[in-house]
Amino acid sequence: MISKLIDKIQKTNAPIVVGLDPMLSYIPECITKPAFEQFGETFEGAAEAVWQYNKAIVDATYDLIPCVKPQIAMYEQFGIPGLVAFRKTVDYCHEKGLLVIGDVKRGDIGSTSAAYAVAHLGKTVIGGKSFAAFDEDFATVNPYLGSDGVKPFLEVCNSDDKGIFLLVKTSNPSSGEFQDRLIDGRPLYEWVGEKVAEWGEASMDGAYSNVGCVVGATYPEMGRILRGIMPKAYILVPGYGAQGGTAEGLKPYFNADGLGAIVNSSRGIIAAYKQAKYAEKFAPENFADASRQAVIDMREDINGAVFGNA
Amino acid sequence: MISKLIDKIQKTNAPIVVGLDPMLSYIPECITKPAFEQFGETFEGAAEAVWQYNKAIVDATYDLIPCVKPQIAMYEQFGIPGLVAFRKTVDYCHEKGLLVIGDVKRGDIGSTSAAYAVAHLGKTVIGGKSFAAFDEDFATVNPYLGSDGVKPFLEVCNSDDKGIFLLVKTSNPSSGEFQDRLIDGRPLYEWVGEKVAEWGEASMDGAYSNVGCVVGATYPEMGRILRGIMPKAYILVPGYGAQGGTAEGLKPYFNADGLGAIVNSSRGIIAAYKQAKYAEKFAPENFADASRQAVIDMREDINGAVFGNA
Repeated sequence: MISKLIDKIQKTNAPIVVGLDPMLSYIPECITKPAFEQFGETFEGAAEAVWQYNKAIVDATYDLIPCVKPQIAMYEQFGIPGLVAFRKTVDYCHEKGLLVIGDVKRGDIGSTSAAYAVAHLGKTVIGGKSFAAFDEDFATVNPYLGSDGVKPFLEVCNSDDKGIFLLVKTSNPSSGEFQDRLIDGRPLYEWVGEKVAEWGEASMDGAYSNVGCVVGATYPEMGRILRGIMPKAYILVPGYGAQGGTAEGLKPYFNADGLGAIVNSSRGIIAAYKQAKYAEKFAPENFADASRQAVIDMREDINGAVFGNA
Repeated sequence: MISKLIDKIQKTNAPIVVGLDPMLSYIPECITKPAFEQFGETFEGAAEAVWQYNKAIVDATYDLIPCVKPQIAMYEQFGIPGLVAFRKTVDYCHEKGLLVIGDVKRGDIGSTSAAYAVAHLGKTVIGGKSFAAFDEDFATVNPYLGSDGVKPFLEVCNSDDKGIFLLVKTSNPSSGEFQDRLIDGRPLYEWVGEKVAEWGEASMDGAYSNVGCVVGATYPEMGRILRGIMPKAYILVPGYGAQGGTAEGLKPYFNADGLGAIVNSSRGIIAAYKQAKYAEKFAPENFADASRQAVIDMREDINGAVFGNA
């Protein structure tokens, strides 16, 4: 699966993933009003608004980007209708040719991890048939439980040609509380990175592994070290833009081949119309056009800073 | 919320939680056959089987136990119908007076962790109204992202009187890969335990905190140390029975007041009818009666070994 992602990144010249993390407060009235009129101020109404918002943003950006990353928490909070909107979003992105990273941060052990792997990446067997529950292409996974939690995901990566991104060094301010603690002179995130490299050997797909990792844009020096520890792991980089990560700081996340990292932006793209920079040109009802411009600007910013070409 | 759990444990004299983790392979044909006849070999058929299986087990055990712990992965694998069965199970357990621990192992940062907290423990605000998405009483939470990931859950614990159990030392064989690594001479799980104690101070409810922890029954010596580090945290103990934890080994998880721990059994209870010990007496169609007997036996085993009375 990672080779498919790389192919799409090369074709779009955009090492970018758009985070579809729709908070109700991001969604303009032109979307929420008709949704609430039709379904009431209910989970169904909110889910309809989320779906219409996602659809408009995907329609406006799908030709520019390789993939999207819906954050499932933003859908779970709207209950069953929210998860229906999640699945509709996954299907619609696939129709538009996009790959989908399910930002689910699941992680458990044994048969439970296997059930999560099947739910998000594989197929559930029922009698003589099998069905995909949520059907993402990649999922984010929490490594705290060790190999027992990761191996069931590796099996599905290999059987169904899928990929995972393991949390190594997250972008948030308190990520260091445990991740930075020194073990034999090296921070925990480096030890996790070493395991990611080891696990990744079991699911190679070309020059890179289907086992990638998450390293926040907010910690470029750590990104440089982790890049060296996991040369074949694609790095999913959150924290660019809104959280403070800069394009200049992204350089160390890439390998010499110009590959190896994909940078996420969520509210910086999907709620671009709320930023002063875009609000001048785009009215709230043109939010999707603002998102398109924000993708173009992000691509130029990253390609300029990292590769010296916009 | 923890005071409600303690009250129920004292009334039932059973520091026991039944893990409702229904694998299709556990469910006898007397349940699956009519479900598949009605809905086909589909997610709907599997979800109906899961729901009928859970309902029968709850009906046979609710008067003996304080609470249940559905493992959401086992429902997610059946897609939207699976999650409908999860929610129906939560509601039905509440009707029967049981508390519900959602074994969801969620954990993210900021607004995302807030969305998970709201989805599982709180209420989602939509316009002027608010709704509970999954409506559990407790949720399990992964601590790898640090305070930023935990604080949004603490806020909901306080605003909605709910509780969480943070993963500290998990029951699986590879849990030591990261959790046992030494930091300044002490294993990571002890440092996580110290943070659990610190976070817990912000949500006290009587003598115990709404912030509990997960420590596997398979590591009793570590349980003893962690009991000391987190004296006010209730310990949710997985790994008894099927995974190898013994009743004798549970002693160190309890405080001198006879409280402080609740022991989970999943397949040992819900699939008891498949064990040789129960298969002699209970036919597959009497699986729920076997589950009831297994709860009685587990209660006697634990109370005998830990408190010297069955």
